[in-house]
Amino acid sequence: MKAVILDPSPRLVKDHKKPAPARGEVLIRTRLSGICNTDLELTKGYMGFMGIPGHEFVGEVIEENLTEDGSPFKGKSSQASNISASSTSEFQEGEGKEKSSLIGSRVVGEINAACGDCDFCAEGVPTHCQSRTVLGILGRQGCMADYLTLPVENLHVIPENVSNEAAVFVEPLAAAYEILEQVDISKGQRVLVMGDGKLGLLCAMVLSTTGADVTLMGRHENKMALVKPYGVKAMLSEEGGATGPFDVVVEATGSADGFADAMGLTRPRGVIVLKSTVAEGKPLNLAPIVINEITVVGSRCGPFAPAIEALASGAIDPTPLIEATYPIDNALKAFEHAAQKGALKVLVRFD
Amino acid sequence: MKAVILDPSPRLVKDHKKPAPARGEVLIRTRLSGICNTDLELTKGYMGFMGIPGHEFVGEVIEENLTEDGSPFKGKSSQASNISASSTSEFQEGEGKEKSSLIGSRVVGEINAACGDCDFCAEGVPTHCQSRTVLGILGRQGCMADYLTLPVENLHVIPENVSNEAAVFVEPLAAAYEILEQVDISKGQRVLVMGDGKLGLLCAMVLSTTGADVTLMGRHENKMALVKPYGVKAMLSEEGGATGPFDVVVEATGSADGFADAMGLTRPRGVIVLKSTVAEGKPLNLAPIVINEITVVGSRCGPFAPAIEALASGAIDPTPLIEATYPIDNALKAFEHAAQKGALKVLVRFD
Repeated sequence: MKAVILDPSPRLVKDHKKPAPARGEVLIRTRLSGICNTDLELTKGYMGFMGIPGHEFVGEVIEENLTEDGSPFKGKSSQASNISASSTSEFQEGEGKEKSSLIGSRVVGEINAACGDCDFCAEGVPTHCQSRTVLGILGRQGCMADYLTLPVENLHVIPENVSNEAAVFVEPLAAAYEILEQVDISKGQRVLVMGDGKLGLLCAMVLSTTGADVTLMGRHENKMALVKPYGVKAMLSEEGGATGPFDVVVEATGSADGFADAMGLTRPRGVIVLKSTVAEGKPLNLAPIVINEITVVGSRCGPFAPAIEALASGAIDPTPLIEATYPIDNALKAFEHAAQKGALKVLVRFD
Repeated sequence: MKAVILDPSPRLVKDHKKPAPARGEVLIRTRLSGICNTDLELTKGYMGFMGIPGHEFVGEVIEENLTEDGSPFKGKSSQASNISASSTSEFQEGEGKEKSSLIGSRVVGEINAACGDCDFCAEGVPTHCQSRTVLGILGRQGCMADYLTLPVENLHVIPENVSNEAAVFVEPLAAAYEILEQVDISKGQRVLVMGDGKLGLLCAMVLSTTGADVTLMGRHENKMALVKPYGVKAMLSEEGGATGPFDVVVEATGSADGFADAMGLTRPRGVIVLKSTVAEGKPLNLAPIVINEITVVGSRCGPFAPAIEALASGAIDPTPLIEATYPIDNALKAFEHAAQKGALKVLVRFD
């Protein structure tokens, strides 16, 4: 199969071995994959990842390797399946039920493959499983290839009325929905999203659905215009937050300087949601966090179900963020394009 | 009167003008004042404070300047009085009630003097009033003097069975109780307090009352022994948190390096309570906050009522933290002593 390989800079391999699904896993034919900033960091050596990158995809299940009792689920039987949450298939969970199949279903997949046995898995927080592998990031080959494998419990079936171009955004959109799992944001609250990159735009879209008064602070009027239909106000960074302070500030600049700016824009007893993972360490004085009793919430992967629902209902349409789609044969060009300063979403197509 | 004056290094003035209470304020004869690390920072220029430092005291009310309607309260009439919360006096609030007096009462005082009119005051959070003055820290002369003034609503009467030596700890003990207002800590949770200085020891005492499994990490076995009677485990810093990670980590080291260590000792989805205010900025990589979805809670001044209750019931006895008590005539020696590396609480006595 064709695949992008990082070592750590990307190269295209045309005869990579097609993966075989382990017990409890499925084989997926990739249709679209998205390039995320994390992928670009991996090409610089982040996480020391070598191999096939990519963790945003939509594809079709073409093979299943189920467990002996007919259940597709490894690990604890109490572990919740994601399938039912947003499924339109007849696939059913567990023992005693009719054995069913996902073959042919169009799916997206959660990226953390959990062990099912540790304390975090027992608590229903598989995203923090300490033995997890992470699709295209940690110990698991990613989706920037014709085929990928994932545990069946990681899958979410995509409703028919959601296009592949929208579905490929489920993973980053879920990361934006994670904020609503962590912070109580309600109508009338003043919310600032810092950063008009891909994640900042998706966060602004998601937060606008709460009825909060959302402002997006960025450097690009054309990008900020993409969230105007959601009632999100635009503020240029150079205006320096003249309209602050805000109750909640989402730091999604991807810059090491973002956090210090966020502290200055958050009101006493307010909340900073930290989304940027910046490997670089900048001198930082945290005294304002103490003096103003600010709460900082680190926020990473999120729930797929509300993201899929938002796409299916039309509440959110992320497809205007697509800047270009390249066939897998031109994947290296896609990576170059995605790495350009200010680039929005670049997709890779598998035919 | 005698007073310590910072400009910013401390000097003793013997004929300082005795203050007059403004409308709504009382004049207090100081009995004991404590030296806090913040005071030591002020002597280095922190906050640009000049004048009389000190914000930990116990004293007696000797003069009142009440408002015209007989109410001692300025600002919004809805503003809660602290008096009743822990008062044993007959002092009563408000219009239509019998006018009463605090004169002769032994009191401690909250250090933030709020405007009573802003959004934070309206929300019942006067500690974040944006026009506040802060006793001996910001725009208000402190308690390192024979007399001080404070708004009457800042006062808490001290029960008879609480000694002056214990009462002078109410303010820092309240700061430790603030953690319980902010974070849900319960039996069985694993809690780490980092730093065996004054605040760390008080935090360990307070957190032990929840039934949580509390460990104190510090550098001094003799200091850590002070919280052994509270069931707090001691761990030397050089052991490097071998028994971690913890559900909740309280960073009270007062060191710029403490926060990075705290990140490494907190479990995914855990909480760091940040108590240290360090003016210095150290290079800091916040990626672990995002990856492990850690919540950081800045924590400052706290509620006086539970602190006074803990002293009155004997649940907490902070007096073993007293390392020395100097008369006001030797106040400069007291400041020198308090500034020694590893010093515990140094008090100044006013006769």
